[in-house]
Order: sequence, then C-alpha cells, then structure tokens
Amino acid sequence: MLPAAVIKAATGSGREVFVLGFEGATDPDLITGYDHAWVKLGAVGQTIKLLHQKSVEDVVLIGAIDRPSLGELKLDFRGVQLLAKLGLKASKGDDHLLSTVVREFEDEGFRVLGADEIIKPMLAPEGAITRTMPDEQARSDIEIGFRAAMRVGELDIGQAVVVQAGRVLGVEAVEGTDALLARVGTLKSDDKGGVLVKVKKPGQDRRADLPTVGDRTVAGAIDAGLEGIAVHAGHCLLVNRPAMIAMADQAGLFITGIGEPD
Amino acid sequence: MLPAAVIKAATGSGREVFVLGFEGATDPDLITGYDHAWVKLGAVGQTIKLLHQKSVEDVVLIGAIDRPSLGELKLDFRGVQLLAKLGLKASKGDDHLLSTVVREFEDEGFRVLGADEIIKPMLAPEGAITRTMPDEQARSDIEIGFRAAMRVGELDIGQAVVVQAGRVLGVEAVEGTDALLARVGTLKSDDKGGVLVKVKKPGQDRRADLPTVGDRTVAGAIDAGLEGIAVHAGHCLLVNRPAMIAMADQAGLFITGIGEPD
Repeated sequence: MLPAAVIKAATGSGREVFVLGFEGATDPDLITGYDHAWVKLGAVGQTIKLLHQKSVEDVVLIGAIDRPSLGELKLDFRGVQLLAKLGLKASKGDDHLLSTVVREFEDEGFRVLGADEIIKPMLAPEGAITRTMPDEQARSDIEIGFRAAMRVGELDIGQAVVVQAGRVLGVEAVEGTDALLARVGTLKSDDKGGVLVKVKKPGQDRRADLPTVGDRTVAGAIDAGLEGIAVHAGHCLLVNRPAMIAMADQAGLFITGIGEPD
Repeated sequence: MLPAAVIKAATGSGREVFVLGFEGATDPDLITGYDHAWVKLGAVGQTIKLLHQKSVEDVVLIGAIDRPSLGELKLDFRGVQLLAKLGLKASKGDDHLLSTVVREFEDEGFRVLGADEIIKPMLAPEGAITRTMPDEQARSDIEIGFRAAMRVGELDIGQAVVVQAGRVLGVEAVEGTDALLARVGTLKSDDKGGVLVKVKKPGQDRRADLPTVGDRTVAGAIDAGLEGIAVHAGHCLLVNRPAMIAMADQAGLFITGIGEPD
C-alpha cells in the first residue's frame, strides 16, 4: 500500500528512513529524495547486508512487484537458499512467498512492520487537535471548502482550497499547498477568518500520495493570516505533529479533522 | 441587462464612456472606475444637461430601478414636465414609462441604444479568430479545460483554468486570470502546449460581470508560454480585439471560441 505515503509517514513520525529499490520494479521518482540504494530482485544476500550496514531495525515491505520468471531472476547465493526454502514450485501463491520472506528478515533480527502500522498513527483524527476551536463562521467555511475541495478533487485537479466568509479565495492545482497559501495572504479581506481545507481526492489512486499537512503548512497558514486548517480525518497525514500543534497554539490557529459530511 | 458588462463592452470597443448613476439606486462600485456623475432620480433637466456637457452621442439605459413613490421623487422643472407627459397615473406600466423616457432623450438629439447592441458585437464567436488553429492535443486540452472550468464555475469559484497535456495546471479563484497566467508559466512543463480556457459560470447572476479576455490576457498567455486561449463562444467578451489578434498572430498563439460540448 502507498509506498510514497509510507515513506512520508515514516519520516514524518521522526524515523530515519533508508529506502531499498528493486531494479526494474521500483519507480525511481519515489526514492531519489531519500537515503536509498538499488538492488536486483534476486540479490537476497546483498539486500540483507545493506540493511545491516545501515543499522536498520524495522523493515516495511511495500509496493507490488510483478513476479519475475526464474530465468529473469539473478539469484545470489542467499537467493538460491531462499528459493530452496520457498520450494521450487513457486506457484504456492504470494502469501506463502511473503511469509517466507518475512521470516527470513525476522531471522536476521529485523522487525517487520505492516504499512498500516506506520501510516495509521499519522492520519488526522476527527475534531480539533489544537487549543483553538473553529467558531461558527469557520465551521461554515469548512463545510463550503470541504464540498469545493471534493468537487475539485473529483476532477483530479488538487487537494486544497482556502475559504473566507463563504468565498473560495484559492484552489490548489499543481502549484501545491504552500504556493496556494502564499498567494491567499494578499487575496483575503482584512476581516478575521479564512480556512485552509485539505482533503483526499475522491478517486485518488491508492498508490498515489496521501494529502499531507505539516509544520510548513501551519507556518504558511499563519503568514497568510488564516484562522485555521481543516483536514480530511482518516485520510490526511499530519507530519511533525508536536511542532505543528505548538506552532498553531502559539498563534491561536486551529487544526481540526473533519469527516465526510452526511 | 448586465450594467458592468455593458460598460466593459462599450469601453472595450473603443467608445469613450460616461456613466450616470442614480443616487440610492446605482451601486457605487459599478461606476467609480469610470468617468461618471451622480444625479437624483427626478432631476431630469440636470441629467440631460450633464449628457450634453459631456458631448454624449449614444445613450444606453441599463439596470433595474425600483420605481419610487411620487413623494420620494425630487422632481426638477424638466422632471415635472416629463411626469406630465407620462400622465399622472404612473400605473400605465414600465414599457410606457421607458418609451416616454427614450423619446425624451431622442428629442434631445441622443441616439438610444439597447444593451445588446453594445454587447453582442463584443462576444466571442465560435471557432478560431487567429491564423493559428488548435492542434489535436490542444483540442483535447480545451475539452478537459472546458469541463473543469464549468465544474469550478458551478461552485462559483472562478471562470478560468489552464491545462497542459491533460493536466490542470491552475484554477482561477479570486486572484483573477492575469495572476493565474503569471503563475502557470513556472508550473508548466517545458513541452509545447498549454491552453487557457475561460467560460461563463453556469449559474452566473445576469447582472454580474461577463468573463472577459483582452490584450492583457493574450500578453499573459504568451509570457506563460501557452499555445492558445479558448473562450466560451457567445458568453465571453473580447475587448480590444484587433490588438489581441495582432499580438496573438505575431506570437503564433491561437484564440478560439468554443460552444458547449454536446
């Protein structure tokens, strides 16, 4: 599930991340921004050696890999051993393959975690996580913004909008949330208010990025003079949460998780 | 119909415009940007004197005015004369009132034009008005952009989007089309292409502004490295058309009017 989201959630929760890509299977764009290395699919010994060298403690297996034919696999010595454990008839199914690989990692002293164990604690809960709560005007703006963001998301355009007093000040497309926040500061009226609403696009590919809000988002919202941030509960990653909350509380900004309206 | 659109269409077609506002009836925001004066509703003699002073040739009556009671009307001498012509029983209906007022202006040597006579020649026709025509990729981007802009317009957010190779680069909200164009220049890929699509919002108030494209829009599209501009045929005002077309033709940019898709 969601390789990019797992990497982002892991780094966002303060973990040091080392990403191992499989040549010909992993999307280079996914990992080039992180400490990483490339290995061949059958190079089991090399893989384990690299993980030890990097003092890796927890391993998460993510992303689908098309099962190569035995002829394509470039097995190293350890790879041959593992294949023997799997049984030469590799037709026993993916679960058998996966559990054998997991046991192999565990035997080497690594803890194998599910992607959900990394992601779920990072997802926004419902309700405010800051001392400040949205007032009535803000709740109305959040509702308008949520609906607008979902409609814009359906068109696969972007994930975020900014609303003030019922008026959509800005819509995010490819420029990203930081650029959206940078421009709404000059577009909003001097009145109080203004809310950033960020949601997961309704049709979003499961392997695509989850919407993310972090301390940079909070700083941008404060600079823009907004009153708060509303994120899609259960679908939006909150990274560097303690820093976010401290910064928001100091500025009197609210951050709240919102469920789908009825 | 559409006071703002008429004023914009008139100036956009090269006319010098003088706007007369009626105290308590005309929205000040509508006219403050133009050469204008304020009169009381019953000050008929003063109104006509002002129009002569400004060497007005053509008069367009626009905007609904709630009929005041006779007691509220501050009639000047000419106003009393006009009221006599109307017949004291002002219950004969608005058409009678309007045609009497029109005749009064005509008797003074002004030509009275309908709002449509000003606006219609300014509306975008269907098809390309430039030498360059949209190619296949551009036509596909226009279709995507038209659909996206209409959806965004339904939410009363904005009128314009920019699309390149099927990807919506930017959505206009309150920042306006010029600001949208200014930012997509840095967001588009270096590949050829990119189209600005501008439409009338589906639910747009009849008195609200019509979407407008002019030479500044063309300059912005050229600076952003776009390939063309597609406007809602029959709904979008083209101002300074000769300058627009000359500028676009020199840069190899297309400008085309598009009807609603089937």
